[in-house]
Amino acid sequence: MNISDTSLPRVVVVGGGFAGLKFCKNLRHDKFQIVLIDRHNYHTFQPLLYQVATAGLEPDSIAYPLRKIFNKIPNFYFRMTEVLEVFPEKKCLRTTIGELEYDHLVLATGTVTNFFGNEEIEKRAMGMKFVPEALNIRSLILQNFEAALLTDDLKERESLMNVVIVGGGPTGVELAGAIAELKKHVLPTDYPDLDFRRMSIHLVEGTERVLPPFSEEASKKALQYLETLGVNVWLNTMVKDYDGKTIVTSGKPMLTQTLIWAAGVKCQPLDGIPAANLVKGNRIKVNHFNQVEAYEGLYVLGDLAYMETKDFPKGHPQVAQPAIQQGKLLAKNLSSLVRGKAMKPFKYKDQGSLATIGRSRAVADLPHYKTQGTLAWFIWTFVHLIALVGFRNRVVVFFNWMINFFSYNRDIRLIIRPYKRKE
Amino acid sequence: MNISDTSLPRVVVVGGGFAGLKFCKNLRHDKFQIVLIDRHNYHTFQPLLYQVATAGLEPDSIAYPLRKIFNKIPNFYFRMTEVLEVFPEKKCLRTTIGELEYDHLVLATGTVTNFFGNEEIEKRAMGMKFVPEALNIRSLILQNFEAALLTDDLKERESLMNVVIVGGGPTGVELAGAIAELKKHVLPTDYPDLDFRRMSIHLVEGTERVLPPFSEEASKKALQYLETLGVNVWLNTMVKDYDGKTIVTSGKPMLTQTLIWAAGVKCQPLDGIPAANLVKGNRIKVNHFNQVEAYEGLYVLGDLAYMETKDFPKGHPQVAQPAIQQGKLLAKNLSSLVRGKAMKPFKYKDQGSLATIGRSRAVADLPHYKTQGTLAWFIWTFVHLIALVGFRNRVVVFFNWMINFFSYNRDIRLIIRPYKRKE
Repeated sequence: MNISDTSLPRVVVVGGGFAGLKFCKNLRHDKFQIVLIDRHNYHTFQPLLYQVATAGLEPDSIAYPLRKIFNKIPNFYFRMTEVLEVFPEKKCLRTTIGELEYDHLVLATGTVTNFFGNEEIEKRAMGMKFVPEALNIRSLILQNFEAALLTDDLKERESLMNVVIVGGGPTGVELAGAIAELKKHVLPTDYPDLDFRRMSIHLVEGTERVLPPFSEEASKKALQYLETLGVNVWLNTMVKDYDGKTIVTSGKPMLTQTLIWAAGVKCQPLDGIPAANLVKGNRIKVNHFNQVEAYEGLYVLGDLAYMETKDFPKGHPQVAQPAIQQGKLLAKNLSSLVRGKAMKPFKYKDQGSLATIGRSRAVADLPHYKTQGTLAWFIWTFVHLIALVGFRNRVVVFFNWMINFFSYNRDIRLIIRPYKRKE
Repeated sequence: MNISDTSLPRVVVVGGGFAGLKFCKNLRHDKFQIVLIDRHNYHTFQPLLYQVATAGLEPDSIAYPLRKIFNKIPNFYFRMTEVLEVFPEKKCLRTTIGELEYDHLVLATGTVTNFFGNEEIEKRAMGMKFVPEALNIRSLILQNFEAALLTDDLKERESLMNVVIVGGGPTGVELAGAIAELKKHVLPTDYPDLDFRRMSIHLVEGTERVLPPFSEEASKKALQYLETLGVNVWLNTMVKDYDGKTIVTSGKPMLTQTLIWAAGVKCQPLDGIPAANLVKGNRIKVNHFNQVEAYEGLYVLGDLAYMETKDFPKGHPQVAQPAIQQGKLLAKNLSSLVRGKAMKPFKYKDQGSLATIGRSRAVADLPHYKTQGTLAWFIWTFVHLIALVGFRNRVVVFFNWMINFFSYNRDIRLIIRPYKRKE
């Protein structure tokens, strides 16, 4: 793979998400050769994908070039490729651009959308885990509105205007809120020929409340915010099938040509990691040091890692914070390991959960404090701005938010690349 | 096509570029029903496409939703479609979404890249007339650099690093300058393994000077700027063929997998407009009122219009200014026409030409004043910021330019959608 051999131990990191990035950043001053592998040449700030999908932010402002982050580190290498197979016993991996030996391998490939085996839904529903997927949603919503103007068939028109989001976690809730604001402030002036009383936004959740991992207080308030915004929330409802126009659910059927699937994630299994190491959702079992115990020099971080602890007997939630904290700790532990020092076991510090539902409305479950409303919304805004990677991105996002806030507008409702259905 | 019939005369405008936009804006307060048709749902600010191609600006900041511009005008309709055929005698047109009758038809579809009939080049070279094309160039340059790391074949590596631009007009010159700055300030830190002395940027021009429509003074200075930036300029050189790796020219062959074609434009012929009305490059002949004389109610604007005047016996240059001025005048003339008043013939006011070649360097041929260097660069920057459509776009572009200027960086070097060759 054209990586020069040095006397330094080689650490190969697969995945430039929150975990991989934090790990590399914390390891960079130590004596390792770091090789970062990712399918994309950029890091994606996934918490704001929903704003790209709803024309609130441009795609380029939530992505950041991976090379840029590390381009002053002498022993850092980046390769844009995919891992095809791991040979943990030979300490080697095979990629689309050749093989590579490693001393330490850190897997941090995260998750993809989980359609729970329903191929009909997978073919027709929109996932939202990557920038191009978010752009596809933006294009599809706008294309469907353009098409709604052209039909006299009222049922067809409704199916083009309606949006159904499956999954009432933070992604689904934030997305539903953003689409409700499009309906309220943007779409009616763009499409004065359409009757917006006919547009419905449905949020379908399988459990008995939205934001299931949040406090009940937050769930209740989020539900109230969604209803104020005109989102129809269907709790305890399962989606069973979708033919591209009608969704079959455990309750009433729903008519839509825009189905966004935020109901679950799973990891992609990697050839060479025996099934004995996997648990539900293809997560890989690790010990408290993020090590796969069966193999020397194999580590797993973030969403892909399944670590049972006293506080989290079923593993940590698949969100940014555990990934970031594990990435940071593993960098320290690896330095300790090569120096023959003791490693520290991982202990998750829950820094709380945030979700925003439209302008000036959010819920915040902080460690010692819960709040909902405008203050929560300011906390949400501040935390996301700080967490964004890159000064340019922070400036551009800040100005977009300012302009969107004061103008009630979304100026990037552009169909740059029309979405084409797979069938 | 689902456009309500009113007693107002219907004006159908095809194309939301500079000409179509200016025309609609100036006609909107008059008593017409306006139907604007475009393939895209946004206006493209073409003069800055080269900055999208070179990771200086995000695509969304040079595009603006057409509906937004006109969404407060009661008798305005937008339809995203393509015109398939015009029936000028029946005053009707056929689109992908149905037929539409008109009282007045304004054609302003602009130009596409002209490969002068060479299919081999058309298949493999990159045009740059639309946002997705500019994004393809951005992706291809970065993909080729990622690939350059993987080969030990020096010739192959050079062909991946080299960039050849054909056409020494403003587009080619500005693009060459921007790529030279990528080579100088950005790519070497991103790809420390590559030897950048091996990367060549070639600009190929068929005539004896770059910027042929500019003053000789400007051409000379532009050439000097390009050479200072390390661009190899080949004058009096014609490109004959391209197999995807080697360009055959009238001079030496050139090795590159990135060939950008900015050597010419042509209009796309429209079914139903008889060939007798066309001149070279498929432009449509009009009189001094932008009317196609053979047909009542048929007008042509901008790049597509071919109008012979005393000052411009071979038609006006296919640039923004004539398009904008014709759009404005035709709106006035149409108002006069329906009121039985006399129309005014078009008289082009040349407001000068600007081109920038890297930071702090530009050439400006203004009506009574020529300047080159920093002042020209400030004029260029100011004029382009003012001309951009939309407040958000102006703010975002301004901040990008500030950040790029002070940091020497281009943070949006992202391969969001990899470019796939057509063969």
